[in-house]
Amino acid sequence: MIVSGLLTSVSINFALCIIFFFLYSILRKQPGNYKVYAPRLLAEGIARVRRPNHFHLNRLLPNTSWIRNAWHPTEEQLLAYSGLDAVVFMRIIIFSFKVFTIAGFIGIFILVPVNCSGNQLQDMDFVNLTNNTLDVFSISNVNNGSTSLWIHLGAVYFVTIVVCYLLFSEYKYISSKRIDYFCSSKPQPHQFTILVSNIPVSKGSNVGNSVENFFTQNHTATYLSHVVVHRKSKVWTVANALKKVFKKIFKSRKVPTQQSSMHDGLLENSKVKVKKDKSREEVRAAFVSFKSRYGAAIALHMLQSNNPTQWRTEQAPEPQDVYWPFFSSTFMRRWISRLVVIISCAFLTIVFLIPVFVVQGLTNLAQLEAYFPALKFILTMSIVSQVITGYLPNLILQMSLKIVPPIMKLLSSQQGYICNSDIERSACHKVIWFTVWNVFFANVLSASAFGLLSILLEFKEIPSKLAVSVPAQASFFIAYVVTLGWTSTSSELFRVVPFIGSLICKPFTRNSDNVTVPSFPYHKDIPKILFFGLLGFAYFFLAPLIIPFLLVYFALAYIIYRNQMLYVYAPKYESGGKFWPIVHDSTIFSLVLMHFIAFGIFKMKKLPYPFISTSPLPIFTLLFNEYCRKRFLPIFMGYSTETLQRKDREDQILPEMPYFLTQISAAYQDPALAPTTYSSHHNGLREPLIPVAEVQG
Amino acid sequence: MIVSGLLTSVSINFALCIIFFFLYSILRKQPGNYKVYAPRLLAEGIARVRRPNHFHLNRLLPNTSWIRNAWHPTEEQLLAYSGLDAVVFMRIIIFSFKVFTIAGFIGIFILVPVNCSGNQLQDMDFVNLTNNTLDVFSISNVNNGSTSLWIHLGAVYFVTIVVCYLLFSEYKYISSKRIDYFCSSKPQPHQFTILVSNIPVSKGSNVGNSVENFFTQNHTATYLSHVVVHRKSKVWTVANALKKVFKKIFKSRKVPTQQSSMHDGLLENSKVKVKKDKSREEVRAAFVSFKSRYGAAIALHMLQSNNPTQWRTEQAPEPQDVYWPFFSSTFMRRWISRLVVIISCAFLTIVFLIPVFVVQGLTNLAQLEAYFPALKFILTMSIVSQVITGYLPNLILQMSLKIVPPIMKLLSSQQGYICNSDIERSACHKVIWFTVWNVFFANVLSASAFGLLSILLEFKEIPSKLAVSVPAQASFFIAYVVTLGWTSTSSELFRVVPFIGSLICKPFTRNSDNVTVPSFPYHKDIPKILFFGLLGFAYFFLAPLIIPFLLVYFALAYIIYRNQMLYVYAPKYESGGKFWPIVHDSTIFSLVLMHFIAFGIFKMKKLPYPFISTSPLPIFTLLFNEYCRKRFLPIFMGYSTETLQRKDREDQILPEMPYFLTQISAAYQDPALAPTTYSSHHNGLREPLIPVAEVQG
Repeated sequence: MIVSGLLTSVSINFALCIIFFFLYSILRKQPGNYKVYAPRLLAEGIARVRRPNHFHLNRLLPNTSWIRNAWHPTEEQLLAYSGLDAVVFMRIIIFSFKVFTIAGFIGIFILVPVNCSGNQLQDMDFVNLTNNTLDVFSISNVNNGSTSLWIHLGAVYFVTIVVCYLLFSEYKYISSKRIDYFCSSKPQPHQFTILVSNIPVSKGSNVGNSVENFFTQNHTATYLSHVVVHRKSKVWTVANALKKVFKKIFKSRKVPTQQSSMHDGLLENSKVKVKKDKSREEVRAAFVSFKSRYGAAIALHMLQSNNPTQWRTEQAPEPQDVYWPFFSSTFMRRWISRLVVIISCAFLTIVFLIPVFVVQGLTNLAQLEAYFPALKFILTMSIVSQVITGYLPNLILQMSLKIVPPIMKLLSSQQGYICNSDIERSACHKVIWFTVWNVFFANVLSASAFGLLSILLEFKEIPSKLAVSVPAQASFFIAYVVTLGWTSTSSELFRVVPFIGSLICKPFTRNSDNVTVPSFPYHKDIPKILFFGLLGFAYFFLAPLIIPFLLVYFALAYIIYRNQMLYVYAPKYESGGKFWPIVHDSTIFSLVLMHFIAFGIFKMKKLPYPFISTSPLPIFTLLFNEYCRKRFLPIFMGYSTETLQRKDREDQILPEMPYFLTQISAAYQDPALAPTTYSSHHNGLREPLIPVAEVQG
Repeated sequence: MIVSGLLTSVSINFALCIIFFFLYSILRKQPGNYKVYAPRLLAEGIARVRRPNHFHLNRLLPNTSWIRNAWHPTEEQLLAYSGLDAVVFMRIIIFSFKVFTIAGFIGIFILVPVNCSGNQLQDMDFVNLTNNTLDVFSISNVNNGSTSLWIHLGAVYFVTIVVCYLLFSEYKYISSKRIDYFCSSKPQPHQFTILVSNIPVSKGSNVGNSVENFFTQNHTATYLSHVVVHRKSKVWTVANALKKVFKKIFKSRKVPTQQSSMHDGLLENSKVKVKKDKSREEVRAAFVSFKSRYGAAIALHMLQSNNPTQWRTEQAPEPQDVYWPFFSSTFMRRWISRLVVIISCAFLTIVFLIPVFVVQGLTNLAQLEAYFPALKFILTMSIVSQVITGYLPNLILQMSLKIVPPIMKLLSSQQGYICNSDIERSACHKVIWFTVWNVFFANVLSASAFGLLSILLEFKEIPSKLAVSVPAQASFFIAYVVTLGWTSTSSELFRVVPFIGSLICKPFTRNSDNVTVPSFPYHKDIPKILFFGLLGFAYFFLAPLIIPFLLVYFALAYIIYRNQMLYVYAPKYESGGKFWPIVHDSTIFSLVLMHFIAFGIFKMKKLPYPFISTSPLPIFTLLFNEYCRKRFLPIFMGYSTETLQRKDREDQILPEMPYFLTQISAAYQDPALAPTTYSSHHNGLREPLIPVAEVQG
């Protein structure tokens, strides 16, 4: 990519950001747009109360008061208002900002001067300096074998140590927050409940009896009650459909009103229903509730049966978080679904390489001219070539990346998870690896799918391949940061699609009061932030100029996501900070990738003993990671005996406990009887955060 | 290796086996050798009772009655007499015998005729047929692109399916045996006890109080008692040593007798001992006992503390199985020990390549002549060259392999395990991978350590490299089977080292009654059998002639190890069949290795679509393995709620339970006060197996 192309891209995206900010600060104050820009406040009845009756000129002037409002709440307020997951999300941004402030300081004030003092690029006549002026600031300009490479090595060591320290303290902080959050929560049904699946049923018995027998026998002291999961009977559904068709044909006049298929069926089957309701059938799964949290945890963590594929236990999700389709699945079916999903992901990854190669084709204008000679005249126009090489590739990439999170969520939902939070967490994983593979590796190595595979199979060659390719793509990734970072985040603020949607729908749905409050798409936004982190680590010592762009992105993201958490999104579930281990792992991956690239670069640049001087880095980092897995990960898998027992003891004195325990089983309604959606109202500690509710600004 | 060399090796080893059998059948009947050949019976007082008073001529005649005796007992009798681990060990041999009977049948009666009908080797003039006549029976002789390769492919598929079926049924059988064994066992201290380590102690408190507080608070209903682990105080030991030195110098006449250092110290410190015994100090670990097995299992499986590195729980070993040195270790120290051991293993593996290359040098006589021209005259003698190429290499290999299991056990003992059974299991793992790497890969690829590494890093090339090298080493591995299989196993029967030891010691230890009953070295013998299995899988479709030799080995091993289990070895611990998962995993590895070699061979032999036709094999096998891990592995990690609760209920009615519970804490004696070895007598169900106790034959 040529430098002028990069400048064009930065200008376009900067302008777009300003436009989005300007429009947002005006449009958000129009009561007609509350549904788009403050649905959460509307749903909670706060904005409605304060809706202005008179027109003020103020409403048409852009201002920045929303930034102050978004900045203002403390972390405790955010925790109380949006839950721990929102806090963890904001901490990802803060963590990244901290890391890249330090890395950026070293990069800009130490490494850039060192890079500029070299003259490797002037010595090589094959480099076209006019097109690659940015390379002067990068490590490419340092002379081979120069002693100043030790400064780069020192910077890599320093940043690794700083990041590990920050990762450790952050993991510790979030673990303690998770435990505090649990300790301060009111009794909630899912804390007392587990989901048991693959229940064996002996002949002549049914699922309910089987569960009752097993748990009264083996968990005598703690077992409370159970709800067997049901599904619509397939046989009944088919039979009923056939019956209706016959009825229509033969006695079409005798059916006066068209009832709902379900109700109709139930009425028609009333003779049978007296004996047994045939419209639904038992599934070999049940929600089993216990008298204490500790009792539920014991049943969850212990192997129940001598056949480990039977009586499988899982933590019950929050009632509003349940995802029903996979309750009927056997152990085998869930396992096979998982395999199929993994294969589909691999297939999707390969298919997605097509837009990546289109993008890489565009950044190399010469290649494009060779393929389409007819375009030669247009391509020689300076502004066109700048837009094509600078802005267009990232726009295409952005558009294609938009569809990845929904696809991954769809795939994850087929994987056998029983709650939305698990689905989103799994989708989050998938999107991260997809992005790393298809945006980073595919762009950097510019190789075909099979080429990429063969590169990765030749493990030895990876560092040197990366050493050559990564610095060459620096300006492409700066453009990526401004397009997918700046503009995409600003458009999140402006909510382009919902806004256009509301404009179109307005004439049809006048004064309707249904406000749909969206939930935050963690699986879409966490991978984005983590990928920018990966870019930062990969480039901070190669081409430090990318860091300021990243810092602007993190600052923007901080303020915009805070704003959206307060006004737009309501939490649909509370995973209790379970997203953090994903963040930790992917940061460790980025660090190790940085070490690999460093090894490749130092070897290429002829630093003495590149292997010995860099190999402690990944070894130390992986050992650190292993320690963190042992030290913190178990906390995110389940709560400790200590905590559970304390919480149970505290509960015993609560006057509402006996009533609460009788109500637990009602929380997990039978989906076959009540297959409607569940309200997104949360049972937790949430209360409206009045100080930030000033929509008027 | 030349064929005549192979024949020499087979003859030598066959002769050795016959000699060992002959000697054994005579020597075992001499009462003076009972200590060597029937120490277990001696220790149990059975052989002594039946010791003949009169000399019979019969005692000098060799016979085979011991074979009948070893064959006779049923599996139930072996289980009752030698425990589940012995049964599992015998089942490894039975399993291997079954598999290779089927594979051998296919190999000899289907594949060998197909191989002989080819004429690939006649077409290639560079192969010296006189030296490689065995190759005519191998796949090397099948014509490239021949349709008969499909028969080989079919054989690989068939054997894979048969092995998976057998593995599944064996895993199922052993799981059920494990559960039955547990259900039929009497109450034993380790079933009610866990080991808690890394106990945090607040200031002014001690470990005992800390444990007492924690468990009375969090396991109120089930907590029974605890024993804090102690060690000799280092400060005290040093101070005491100094004191003694001073005493000797200044008041040498006032110390009349030389007492044991420990006792002495205690007496000298009697003033202090009234307040507190300074000779020993508390370690932050304790054996915590519970009123029920289920209570102990809950404490074991649940996370105890909000800091997962504190209050770490492990299943307590059987009292006689405890390995004390690592009780004092912190979480961090055990973790670092583990890392150091892994590095040492890697180092040992590399060092051990030296004898392997010597061995490979010997098998290639031409190479040897080039290095030592002076030996040319001797080497041209036919018998010398046959011994050198056929027998010597495997003898050297055997000698060097002898030292590996003890070294690996030593390494494992430094890894932080708290019981001998874990140490042996870990050593077993290490020896397997060591053998696979250093005997199979190093011999097959005949490459240097770094050469091997670079081969393994170029993942794509492995199958074709193996395809070329593996068939070439067929006769070497036949020689390996006869040397390390036949002779080594026969010498196990004859017990060469203990026999010579007893001959030497006899004059000095006349009529002493101490009989040391050895325990079975699982970590030495399981890897050996598994490695022969690997050879069988690797060669059954390449050079089926190896299979009959293997079958003879398994038959020998079955009868000899049974004999030794009954007369020689007494179980030192009972892991409850925990060795089987190792067997399962390594068989799966052997299968996948076979598939890799098959892919390489079929590609080299120009079978159409080698990748498509072979890739389902490893995929299916690994999926099968994954299923088995889910279906059976949890059973070997801990017992289910179902089983534990049933067992606890059964115990409640036992009259001896209250007394048993009071005695549990006494079982785990304090090692600092009683650092003697524990008796090898087992608390389990063992009772003398009278029918097999006929030493007289």
